[in-house]
This record gives sequence, C-alpha cells and structure tokens, in this order.
Amino acid sequence: MNESVGIVEPKKLTLQGKLDLECGQSLTDIEIVYETYGNLNQDSSNAILICHALSGNHHAAGVYEGEKRPGWWDSLIGPGKAIDTNKFYVVCPNNIGGCHGSLGPSSINKETGDYFGPDFPIITVKDWVRSQSLLSDSLGIEKWHAVVGGSLGGMQALEWSRLFPDKIKKAGIIAAAPKLSAQNIAFNEVARQAILNDPDFAAGRYLDTGQSPKQGLKLARMVGHITYLSEEAMKSKFGRDLKEEKLNFVYDAEFEIESYLRYQGDVFSENFDANTYLLMTKLLDYFDPAVDHQGDLARAFETIEAQLLVVSFTTDWRFAPERSREIVNALIAAKKRVSYLEIDSPHGHDSFLFADEDYTKGLSSFLEN
Amino acid sequence: MNESVGIVEPKKLTLQGKLDLECGQSLTDIEIVYETYGNLNQDSSNAILICHALSGNHHAAGVYEGEKRPGWWDSLIGPGKAIDTNKFYVVCPNNIGGCHGSLGPSSINKETGDYFGPDFPIITVKDWVRSQSLLSDSLGIEKWHAVVGGSLGGMQALEWSRLFPDKIKKAGIIAAAPKLSAQNIAFNEVARQAILNDPDFAAGRYLDTGQSPKQGLKLARMVGHITYLSEEAMKSKFGRDLKEEKLNFVYDAEFEIESYLRYQGDVFSENFDANTYLLMTKLLDYFDPAVDHQGDLARAFETIEAQLLVVSFTTDWRFAPERSREIVNALIAAKKRVSYLEIDSPHGHDSFLFADEDYTKGLSSFLEN
Repeated sequence: MNESVGIVEPKKLTLQGKLDLECGQSLTDIEIVYETYGNLNQDSSNAILICHALSGNHHAAGVYEGEKRPGWWDSLIGPGKAIDTNKFYVVCPNNIGGCHGSLGPSSINKETGDYFGPDFPIITVKDWVRSQSLLSDSLGIEKWHAVVGGSLGGMQALEWSRLFPDKIKKAGIIAAAPKLSAQNIAFNEVARQAILNDPDFAAGRYLDTGQSPKQGLKLARMVGHITYLSEEAMKSKFGRDLKEEKLNFVYDAEFEIESYLRYQGDVFSENFDANTYLLMTKLLDYFDPAVDHQGDLARAFETIEAQLLVVSFTTDWRFAPERSREIVNALIAAKKRVSYLEIDSPHGHDSFLFADEDYTKGLSSFLEN
Repeated sequence: MNESVGIVEPKKLTLQGKLDLECGQSLTDIEIVYETYGNLNQDSSNAILICHALSGNHHAAGVYEGEKRPGWWDSLIGPGKAIDTNKFYVVCPNNIGGCHGSLGPSSINKETGDYFGPDFPIITVKDWVRSQSLLSDSLGIEKWHAVVGGSLGGMQALEWSRLFPDKIKKAGIIAAAPKLSAQNIAFNEVARQAILNDPDFAAGRYLDTGQSPKQGLKLARMVGHITYLSEEAMKSKFGRDLKEEKLNFVYDAEFEIESYLRYQGDVFSENFDANTYLLMTKLLDYFDPAVDHQGDLARAFETIEAQLLVVSFTTDWRFAPERSREIVNALIAAKKRVSYLEIDSPHGHDSFLFADEDYTKGLSSFLEN
C-alpha cells in the first residue's frame, strides 16, 4: 500500500492527423512525450488521463533511473494511492507547447529548419484537449474512465467533459476556476513582461544566441510562486525570519523568504523554457468556456455527460473556493451529476499537490465507485 | 465647503544638526522639501503632520500653478474636508531618501561631489520620524496636534506616538500593519529584483549613464499596483474586457487590465527614481516596532501617550483589517486610548485615498473633538 510506482521511463509517439488550432494555424507530425503507470485492462476501460498545470510535464509519478526526485503528483498516483495504479492505467502527457519533449517552441519547425521559438502558435485549452483526444486514439483508448487535473489541469478536465462527452466517464476538476479574474490575468501579465523585457529574451530567438532570459523567467516564477502559497503557509514557514542574526541594511536577501524565492526562481529558470512559460500563461488567460454562450456557464455545460468531482482548498487565493463553486453552481443549474469537496488545507493553491487525507479519500472514492 | 486649498508651492529648508541613522551612518545638511496648507495659530497648537507612503511625496493637496492634477490626498485635505485647513495648519514633507527634492539618492553627496545613487544609506521608519522631529524644530512646532498617514504613512504616525510621546497629541494610523508579513516582503522582493536585474540599473549608478532602469521600475510598479487594488475593484473596472473585439493570439496586451497596468507602470517609471523605490521597499520590510521587545507589541506601545485612531478597509488585502486589529488589540492591552474604524470600501489598499463618507467623518471627528 502507498508505495511508489518505482522506476519509470517516458515514451514518445507522433500523433496521426492534423490539429487545427483556435488561433487559425494548424500543426502536423505532433510528437508527444508521455508516461504511463499501471496496466490497461482488456476492455481498455480503466484508463485515467492526468492533465498537468502551468509548469508541469509528463513526469507525474515514480522516479527516473538514477534520480531521487519523484514525479510532481507522486503523492497521489501509485499502488494504493488516491489514483490507484493497482486498479487504473494512468497516462500523463507533456502538452504541446511544452518544453519537456513534446512539440513546442524549442522544437525544430520542419518548414524552416529553425527552432519555432516565438513563431510557435499560441495554444488554447481546447487545442490541448483536442491533442489529447488524438493521443487517446493513438493509445487505443475509446473512453477515459476519468480525466483528472489540478489548476490549469482541472480546466482541461472540465473542457474534456464539454468537448468529448462520449469519450469521458468522469472528470476530476481540482483547484480550478471557470475563467481567470482580472487579478489572475494581471499577475500573468507581470510574469510575461518580466520575460519579454529581459534583453536576453531576444524577441524569443534566444536559442540562437545561447543566452536564455533566465532573469526574466526567474522573476516570472517568483511572482507566480507567491500566488501558489497561502499567506498562512508563508507565515508559518518563513515569517520574518532573518538569514543572519541581524539586519545588514543592504539589498542582498535579509529575510529567509527572499532567499527562498530567489532560489526557487533560479532553479526554475534553469529548467524551464521562457517561450513555453509565455504560452502557458496565455493559455490560462484565454480559458473561458462560457464566452461562446454569452457568459452563461450553465449553457456552456449543457453537452456534459460525465460524472464530475470539483475540489477546492480553503487557503487557495489564486483560485479560491468561490471560483470552484461557480463551476459547481453552473453544473447544478445545468442538471449535471457533480460532487463538491472543499478541503481544509494550509498550502494555498499548491494544496492540490499534497496528499491530505480528506482530499485523497474523496478523490479515490470518486474514481472507484 | 469642500473646496481645494488652491494653488500651492513647495518650500525648502535645511534641517539643523546631524541625523544618526539606524544603519550606523549619519546625514547632515539635510534638505527637506515640504508643503503647508492652512495657517498656524498663535500658540502653534493646530499643526498636523501628514506622512506619505511608498511612492508618495510632499504634494498632498492643492495644485501647482498651471497644472490640473491635485496632490495625492486632496480628497481629504482642504477647507471643510476631513483634514480641515480652515482649522488646521497642515505640513507634508517629502521624506529623506525621496526623489522629489528632499535629500535622497539623486542628490549630490558633498563628500564625493557625485550623486549618492546606491551609496545613499538605507533609511528606516525610525529615521524618518527622527528627521520629521528635526523638521518640527525648524518650523517651531513643539507638539503636533496630530500625525496622520496611510499605509507606510500610518507606520510613521504609529512610530511618532512611540518615539516622541510628548510631541504628539493624536495619531491617525490608516491602512497600516504592525509589520510586513512574509507575503508582503515577498512582493517587495520581486519589485526589487525587477529593478536590480534591469541592465540599465547599472549597479545603481544610472544617473551617470543617462539611461535609467525604466523597465525594471515599471515591472516593480505593476506588481505593487496589483496589491493596491482589490480583486473586486479590478473585476468591476476591467473584468475580462478585451482591448479589441476579439482575441488576436499575440503577446501584445489583449485584455484591458494588461494595458492599464502597462500604462500605469510606464507613467510611474518616468516619474520616480529606482534607488528611492528600492529604499522605500526596504523601509517597509524593516518596520517592526515589536522587534526590540521580544515580539511583544503591547510592550512596544508602553511609551505612547497620544490618542490614536486606527482605520482599515474591508477589501484591503495588502494590509487587511486583521493587521490593523493587531495594532488595536496591542494598544488596548497596553491600556492606550484607541478608536478603531473598519470601513466598507471597494478600493482595496488604495481606499485610504478615497473620501468615503464614513471614513472622512470618522477622521474629522477624531481630529476635531
């Protein structure tokens, strides 16, 4: 019980067919990197699709040979865990536009022979879901037992239930919102400006110069990171703790929280691609299923047939519980089968990554019953 | 009633004596720019000191000859207004370290003949209050009828009541906190990193190059600006309104909120000094009256003799009402005379700039009775 899935290896395939994007462009020969955990049963009825969030990737569980750090949702995916790999066949792809092996801004554009860079088309959540539907076809999965994700991942799960009602049985929509607020967009815009204004960004062609916009990406991550943590979590973890015994009256980091944010920003800027970050913030901004229905979310949900679970966390101020309740209320108005869990957790938006007992029990019972 | 103080002109004087700073350095020949409104009465008992906040200055009320935009607190200061210039003599200085005429990083360091720039010592709220006490001496004001300020200005008013109990009759502490939280410091650190990482910052010596770090300062202001507005205010003012009729799938501003923040950031970066901005964020971070009393705020308040008014605003999430209540509760524990007003206002932290009726009535009755 509650073990890891162990050593895992990413897989790769090329999607069949052309993907017409919302922006008007299209993509072909789409390479997708993904991981799977557990075994697909004979009638292919036990497959769960995991959708990653802003800075996520396909490495959701287990560890790579020779490495120690497990996948980003290892707390929830594994034998006996909330998403039980003894029962389910779990698939997690790196979405297109990503920077961990799937087709994205760092890939070669076969038409030009150069990196896509800033020419990579801007993707939407709809585009992602359609690409994941092509992936389902490649994997021979006609109907997902469930599509589950947190944050931007939850938005994909919601969109799956709207766009492909006959290909999804259950949707787990965790720590999400039906659309970004002005404040959410504002924080994304600060992150984008930090990257766009970094001279090393070089109008997005930094792979040609070999000098990537690390300072801009670091800043973008720092501001994002603040919105992922609750004020309470920051207070209990760092408070006003000083790095040294006394103040030094300098612009170097004096408080622990400053060092922490700088360090996290540095690590992130070494491991993520700036064009992908820009792309994913836009993807969040654009998400708004009600926009084609005069803002009426219940009408946007009319096509849904899946059973849905919506989960929110008390200290999440990025996508607060009231944002999840907007989804729930619209689903109820549209007469859909929805359960709602509001979990008392101190970790802010990041709570969806922690295996709180109420949360994991609620999720596993939703998936298994 | 409720008119403007009309045309005003800034004044200038040089403080007598030496100011020993908390950082260990000292300053002499301190030039201070300030404005006054109303008339000082015969026994100099009707003087009110206004303390400005992070990006504020001495131009609190009235207009300059030939200009239209009034001072930053014109809504509250004037004949018949909350701070009634028919009754009070109102003084507002630009604090040291500022960039509007008082001694600061853009001033010439007489010892070197060059700009201070990054060599300007880091100032604290205590230093500011002590410099304002020297200003009182120069103006012949032995005891302020009141010291009033919002945000960082409120912290100065609080510190005045602690440090100079016999020189202050009343203190108005508006939209303040007894110290910054980890999250508050984190946002300041993002702002600082934006400035420090701008190549045009040139280690703070940008006045020599003639190329100021506008992009960094713009970013710093954008992230600050988000924390000044309530999520509700942003929602009602901008929501998800688009700049054009439809999405263009580009990295240019697509939503009104993006344009607004960019524009505000641009204007600010043309009119403010980066070294001053750095300095003022540190000043906020360092403020913590309880730090010399083992974190016991009530003990830090023991010296206070003034009558105090604490005001908070319901939608302020930068310094939320509970932060003001920390001050109030400690004042009560220390058996001080304190009144507390929690004002229902939609404007977030910026509420202290708006002449809400409950707020202005509460403030004027506190000052006049």
